[in-house]
Amino acid sequence: MYLERIQSENDIKKIPEDKLNALADEIRQFLIEKISVTGGHLGSNLGAVELTMALHLSLDLPKDKIIWDVGHQSYTHKLLTGRREGFDTLRKFGGMAGFPKRIESDCDCFNTGHSSTSISAGLGLVKARDLRGENHTIVSVIGDGSLTGGMAYEALNNASKLETNFIIVLNDNNMSISENVGGVSKYLNGIRTADSYLDLKESIFTKLMNIPGGANVVKTIRKTKSTLKSMVIPGMFFEDMGITYLGPVNGHDINAVRELLKDAKRKKGPVLVHVITQKGKGYTPAERHPARFHGTEPFIIETGLPSHPRTKANYTDVFSTIMMKLADRHPEVVAITAAMADGTGLKRFRNVYPERFFDVGIAEEHAVTFAAGLAVGGLKPIVCIYSSFLQRAYDQILHDVCIQNLPVVFAIDRAGVVGSDGETHQGIFDISYLSSIPNMTIMAPKNKWELSDMMKFAVGFDGPVSVRYPRGIAYDGLEEYRAPVEYGKAEVICSESKIALVALGSMVCTAEGVRDALKEKGYPCSLINARFAKPIDEETILSLTKDHEMIVTMEENVGSGGFGEKVRYLLDESGFTGKLINIFIPDEYVEHGNVEILKKEIGIDKESIVERILNKL
Amino acid sequence: MYLERIQSENDIKKIPEDKLNALADEIRQFLIEKISVTGGHLGSNLGAVELTMALHLSLDLPKDKIIWDVGHQSYTHKLLTGRREGFDTLRKFGGMAGFPKRIESDCDCFNTGHSSTSISAGLGLVKARDLRGENHTIVSVIGDGSLTGGMAYEALNNASKLETNFIIVLNDNNMSISENVGGVSKYLNGIRTADSYLDLKESIFTKLMNIPGGANVVKTIRKTKSTLKSMVIPGMFFEDMGITYLGPVNGHDINAVRELLKDAKRKKGPVLVHVITQKGKGYTPAERHPARFHGTEPFIIETGLPSHPRTKANYTDVFSTIMMKLADRHPEVVAITAAMADGTGLKRFRNVYPERFFDVGIAEEHAVTFAAGLAVGGLKPIVCIYSSFLQRAYDQILHDVCIQNLPVVFAIDRAGVVGSDGETHQGIFDISYLSSIPNMTIMAPKNKWELSDMMKFAVGFDGPVSVRYPRGIAYDGLEEYRAPVEYGKAEVICSESKIALVALGSMVCTAEGVRDALKEKGYPCSLINARFAKPIDEETILSLTKDHEMIVTMEENVGSGGFGEKVRYLLDESGFTGKLINIFIPDEYVEHGNVEILKKEIGIDKESIVERILNKL
Repeated sequence: MYLERIQSENDIKKIPEDKLNALADEIRQFLIEKISVTGGHLGSNLGAVELTMALHLSLDLPKDKIIWDVGHQSYTHKLLTGRREGFDTLRKFGGMAGFPKRIESDCDCFNTGHSSTSISAGLGLVKARDLRGENHTIVSVIGDGSLTGGMAYEALNNASKLETNFIIVLNDNNMSISENVGGVSKYLNGIRTADSYLDLKESIFTKLMNIPGGANVVKTIRKTKSTLKSMVIPGMFFEDMGITYLGPVNGHDINAVRELLKDAKRKKGPVLVHVITQKGKGYTPAERHPARFHGTEPFIIETGLPSHPRTKANYTDVFSTIMMKLADRHPEVVAITAAMADGTGLKRFRNVYPERFFDVGIAEEHAVTFAAGLAVGGLKPIVCIYSSFLQRAYDQILHDVCIQNLPVVFAIDRAGVVGSDGETHQGIFDISYLSSIPNMTIMAPKNKWELSDMMKFAVGFDGPVSVRYPRGIAYDGLEEYRAPVEYGKAEVICSESKIALVALGSMVCTAEGVRDALKEKGYPCSLINARFAKPIDEETILSLTKDHEMIVTMEENVGSGGFGEKVRYLLDESGFTGKLINIFIPDEYVEHGNVEILKKEIGIDKESIVERILNKL
Repeated sequence: MYLERIQSENDIKKIPEDKLNALADEIRQFLIEKISVTGGHLGSNLGAVELTMALHLSLDLPKDKIIWDVGHQSYTHKLLTGRREGFDTLRKFGGMAGFPKRIESDCDCFNTGHSSTSISAGLGLVKARDLRGENHTIVSVIGDGSLTGGMAYEALNNASKLETNFIIVLNDNNMSISENVGGVSKYLNGIRTADSYLDLKESIFTKLMNIPGGANVVKTIRKTKSTLKSMVIPGMFFEDMGITYLGPVNGHDINAVRELLKDAKRKKGPVLVHVITQKGKGYTPAERHPARFHGTEPFIIETGLPSHPRTKANYTDVFSTIMMKLADRHPEVVAITAAMADGTGLKRFRNVYPERFFDVGIAEEHAVTFAAGLAVGGLKPIVCIYSSFLQRAYDQILHDVCIQNLPVVFAIDRAGVVGSDGETHQGIFDISYLSSIPNMTIMAPKNKWELSDMMKFAVGFDGPVSVRYPRGIAYDGLEEYRAPVEYGKAEVICSESKIALVALGSMVCTAEGVRDALKEKGYPCSLINARFAKPIDEETILSLTKDHEMIVTMEENVGSGGFGEKVRYLLDESGFTGKLINIFIPDEYVEHGNVEILKKEIGIDKESIVERILNKL
């Protein structure tokens, strides 16, 4: 067991050269076993084992810096920096994070989570190093999927001016989370299948050398620094930007990668090292189903099947089904995803309506403005992006969709506390950032039927409209309440007096529990399903002021710019003199962990709310 | 006068071929005369005269579509589509906008204002056209500066898959607003100076053809579709992405551009037409000082000097000066701009501290994450981006700076109503989107001295901090109030009773006027300079509840997620039973026009506020 010898960073350097492959096997086995129990990112980590080992062998951590783009491939890095024990608490509350975290280790130099940030951050570290007269190596490790994000290109464009060393490792598995898209992907593919290219090059050079005077031509070609260089160098796309290209190299050959890194460290300037890896490498189910094993729940190692198969539909399933119906009924409906066809539930849509389905890559900004163009062109685009990733497109929603008041539908999955992915993935800001935007309508369903009803409403609505819904099992209670969705109208679930609970989306289910608990204590409550976070239903809310002494708003979002704030303003202006409680997520980041535990921690679970109400009574 | 013959779109087609250059001259003269009176974007428009004419001659508007990236180069387009009269009211309230506007003309198919959106929007229109079985030409016109924005790359990457026609005109003047930056710019420059390149190509081919067997080699090279193509085609960078490249062509040669567009229209797939233009073409002062004539105030045609020279410093000047002091005192201070060295007042900084100055191009996302990297590396980055453009980096602020609680300073110029640029440029959302983010501190100065003091405070602060300040003349009143800036503390300017005005930033000046007006009517008011929008000064605000019956908050930002909301929450929770008025910008976009007129329209001017207070008393 070589893995046991690794207690902290640089210990890997003590492993005999000829045992490194054995160590790689152990790491792979370790990851499969641990993740099969805790769940986590499997495919990306299995793909990066040897690459990570080669980096650790070539660098001097923590003096040298590695920035992991997205960060879901950093498990081997965590293992090699003394965090083996952490894998038992991986992604659990208080346990080890699934992404790099500066507070966990000196060897984690930059927190990541969202895509395409590593070259920008790395370039910042490089400039700081140079200005401070320091001398260490900085490496950004970015996947080919992350290269579809525009930020990465902005950073490459800036890196090109560098005159000091900066290593960008392109970890190329020809995959985003599902298949990769776009011209650059096709281009990389061209390099990957380099045999034919090399053959062609060889054949031309051979031909030239064999004809009189040809040698001179070859010399001319070799000499030139301009476009002609692409004859002899693959990766011209990067060279065109002023970035030295090295590779491609087999990313599972530790020594080959080390050799290339050695070359890379010698360059004065930006270098891109192109490493070809296989997602899920070494675990057959993950090799075969890369999308399913990107982020996985606990699974049975032998079969790759989930340890605890879901028996109930989650919101994504419900969304998936209604999208098929909407597409069938409305030929103008088209769907857009940013590299999340599986995650957002659009796989069926893609298969049945391929020409109406657009996976734009990890490119949320483009996705939204592209949708604006589709809407101007007379279609009904449904943009399907997780709440935390849609943050990337705030300006595009504000500037390209809402100024023109275009009928674009935003289907916002993973809205609210998402759990084990932690700070970077919590969808707890969307009501705030969307509320600030004029012309935007925001809805949230109380249960699975209402998600379908709201999607139908949204498709018929002539303006920008968002439907936010949480990760996880779709609530199937309150089936009997299914009043038609009307613009800006709430739904009264039950009418009592004194206390009114006005809950939005996922919080309606919580509010039910609160109602039951308070009833037991002798305080029957009215329960209102708000449905709309913007505009709020002024009429229904104002009607509550007549026979209620306390109104409680509930939302799974931060307070600033949220739903409760709008209700508060309305009530204040109406002269309401009763008590008002706004339940929302406090102004701090929410870490990783089980959703129920997190909700208790931040005080939006049933018990905390009941307590706050009783205290205020 | 050929210009007079043009009353609506397609009228240009009636102008005799040999008179087109005369028309171009007339247009140029017209633009110079009109803009010298109204102010507006001059350089970009003078550069695009012939290009626009060629487009109008080649297309059938409004059936065909042109999307103007940013849109500040669309004046000739407006002229050629029957809006000549509009130039007398250009950018005035109720008058013609300085950017494309769908409500102005059927020939404006997509509103623009921010950079790098046109390819995404154009691609949306293309997909809609194809799915609806329509048949027209769609052209996105994008500058080389806008190509530094990552979104444009995301769009190019997606366009590459197209199998139907889509024309991207690269209007290349080797300029953003000031000089262009980065690897792609350098690359384009390589193509522009194509003579040597063409010579080289010619010489190789000539050599080959002159040697026995050489013809076969040439054939092989011509046949191949791979990387070798770059030998015969410039623009390999685009070709690598799967986009056909045509050009470069002189953009002031109408017929040459028409010829290339004719070729472009025939391609099945995405085509990039590379057009070389000169910013400011035909007006010497604009050719010589492109940055100054990018967006200009009214000027004297003969000299190019401002018609009404400023006699007082604006906030940008004040910022510019304090940046020099901070840089001198703090070697760790570095400055970052996104293509706005002039606009943000960093020219002096750039000249004196070139190695500590970073112009990253129109790449706000990269700018912020790059700053996060600089901060992790031990420097003190000051990110200088206009309020409306910083919207682009919402996720990067939230995800890369604030989760890690990094000491990055955001200097947010153009915060508040900016005036003549209209909806897309108003800086009226920043308090909202920044307030939603944990760990963020937000300040706004009351006058010019306070801007300096706040910048000093920000540089000493160990966490993310924003200083927002408006466009225009820096307020130089209240000089005698200069209490040291303390974290989260407001400044009491005067203490009365009954009415308290709690104003933020630019609104302190307005509040002074309100105070004077109310005093005259017998209502003396307390005046508090809030200084911090987040966190608010709870102690000072709560102290007001003792002897005030009415509290009025004032901010130049929308209400949702704003400063007033936080004060309202605090006061409500404190049990304050007096009256509360929140003055903020209503939930709608603010169009173009004079700032004073706009403030009156949206009810944040002195008179409107006095009236609201008197009504509520």
